[in-house]
Amino acid sequence: MIRQLKQLLDFRQGGALPRIAVASAHDENVLLSIREAASRSMAQFILLGREGDIRSIAAEHGVSLCETDGIIAIEDIHDDAACAARAVELVREGRAELVMKGILDTAALLKAVLNSDTGIRDREIISLVSIFEVPGFDRLIAVTDPGISIEPDLNTKRRIIENAVEVFHALGYEEPIVACLSAIEKVNPKIQSTMQAAELAAMNERGEITGCRVIGPLALDVAVSPSAARHKGITNPLAGHADILLVPQIETGNALYKALTYLAMAQNAAVLIGAKAPLVVTSRADTDEAKLYSIALAIRVAEYLRQKRR
Amino acid sequence: MIRQLKQLLDFRQGGALPRIAVASAHDENVLLSIREAASRSMAQFILLGREGDIRSIAAEHGVSLCETDGIIAIEDIHDDAACAARAVELVREGRAELVMKGILDTAALLKAVLNSDTGIRDREIISLVSIFEVPGFDRLIAVTDPGISIEPDLNTKRRIIENAVEVFHALGYEEPIVACLSAIEKVNPKIQSTMQAAELAAMNERGEITGCRVIGPLALDVAVSPSAARHKGITNPLAGHADILLVPQIETGNALYKALTYLAMAQNAAVLIGAKAPLVVTSRADTDEAKLYSIALAIRVAEYLRQKRR
Repeated sequence: MIRQLKQLLDFRQGGALPRIAVASAHDENVLLSIREAASRSMAQFILLGREGDIRSIAAEHGVSLCETDGIIAIEDIHDDAACAARAVELVREGRAELVMKGILDTAALLKAVLNSDTGIRDREIISLVSIFEVPGFDRLIAVTDPGISIEPDLNTKRRIIENAVEVFHALGYEEPIVACLSAIEKVNPKIQSTMQAAELAAMNERGEITGCRVIGPLALDVAVSPSAARHKGITNPLAGHADILLVPQIETGNALYKALTYLAMAQNAAVLIGAKAPLVVTSRADTDEAKLYSIALAIRVAEYLRQKRR
Repeated sequence: MIRQLKQLLDFRQGGALPRIAVASAHDENVLLSIREAASRSMAQFILLGREGDIRSIAAEHGVSLCETDGIIAIEDIHDDAACAARAVELVREGRAELVMKGILDTAALLKAVLNSDTGIRDREIISLVSIFEVPGFDRLIAVTDPGISIEPDLNTKRRIIENAVEVFHALGYEEPIVACLSAIEKVNPKIQSTMQAAELAAMNERGEITGCRVIGPLALDVAVSPSAARHKGITNPLAGHADILLVPQIETGNALYKALTYLAMAQNAAVLIGAKAPLVVTSRADTDEAKLYSIALAIRVAEYLRQKRR
């Protein structure tokens, strides 16, 4: 079971290295991340984008584009939408197991992924799972979905939970604990998130959401701190032990993500899940470590999905 | 200008000590906080509650109830609502300048404060201002309103900003920077908080919200980190320098409050503002320091309001 992000870098998988199709790879940060991952023999890369720019940026930063250094192909594509479509096509053709977002908007990548004719949608919902390692906190804690769904309804929240649980299964957690966050621990019709949280916990009890334990509604303190839970008289023995925090809506997810990163100085790894291939979506502001962790996390999820589908 | 919470404890005010009416004081934690504040000559206290319980708890914990130790009166009141009403009455009669919540629900206290006949409502909205000192972060940062308004409309958000700005004026900030949080920096009709944030910033530019600079919409990283703002190409020179974070709704405020306290290990002081007297609302889970800071913050705000009204 992965309990620290650096453990993501430890694994060795048998057989061939996974292949990652990189949409719009003509960017310094993207190429440097790829070099780092390739140098650790984590994966092989197919670069899609403006080949002239890719080659000049690579030359400038001493990034090798040789096959022996992990770059198995470069395809000259000048348009972001076309890069995204081609990355998705490579997955559909079985020539790549993962897609990595280069310097294009996440929306452009998702459009290609979700295309009803040519896309690679697998589950009902694509969602972002961000996993944080907070200094001084005893375990990893995930936030979902801090980036895609704006104000998810009950069914969407159910799918967001299932996506995150799949990621945690890939990390070796048998039955991760999912806390449905709100501002309070009681159901209050004026706060919709309390009602949705109670319903999601009930769905879990009825066996409609499986592979995890779902609790809620609860505030963040009761989700992560057993002593806060005791203070508030919450008797659920899972309170204080959450692995996954389901946020009520995008603003809470985003604020939590940013507070952990910029104020709690947490490291993080993120993956977009719900497509036939996990999507690596590092952002420019991520640290070099965070980018590498995100690539490693997506590889691990891809490998888990491959074995599960066998 | 106050830049660290411990500075709240430094001040000496001229003249008589402020008097704090404590509603439902029959509680160990409450009495210990009062003793600590009284021992530092911060205030004098009028205890309202079950006198027998107050005396036995005080005896058990060696808390003096003498006037020389800051307890100027004890009134034997057995009902929470009656305690709250009496505390409010003492403010109305000019016999107390502050109200402190003892062991009763905040809702019960607010009911007495907001009573249209006998209450002490001063402004349109009562809101909570929580001020955090985050280890490693260069300044204090406030979150408002993480506890009272569930899903404030535009006008309520305006009043919440004005309340928080008053607190910052009391702390010596001439023109605090208020960041209206959302998940993104562009106005998107699908995310209501982006539209409200843009409108609040416009109201500030038009001179309808004064004494501060209001920016938004923006995500938390752009609010608190100048380098994150640069990364995202945000040119507003105030970006990254927020003093006050206006949250979109209660879930975001609560999650931010709890993340700072339980994961970023921040210290905090909080005050309920909008009534004729600032309300001290420490919670059981607060550290001893946080309770003392909250009392000191409310005293400072009360003194500021007194001078302003002269």
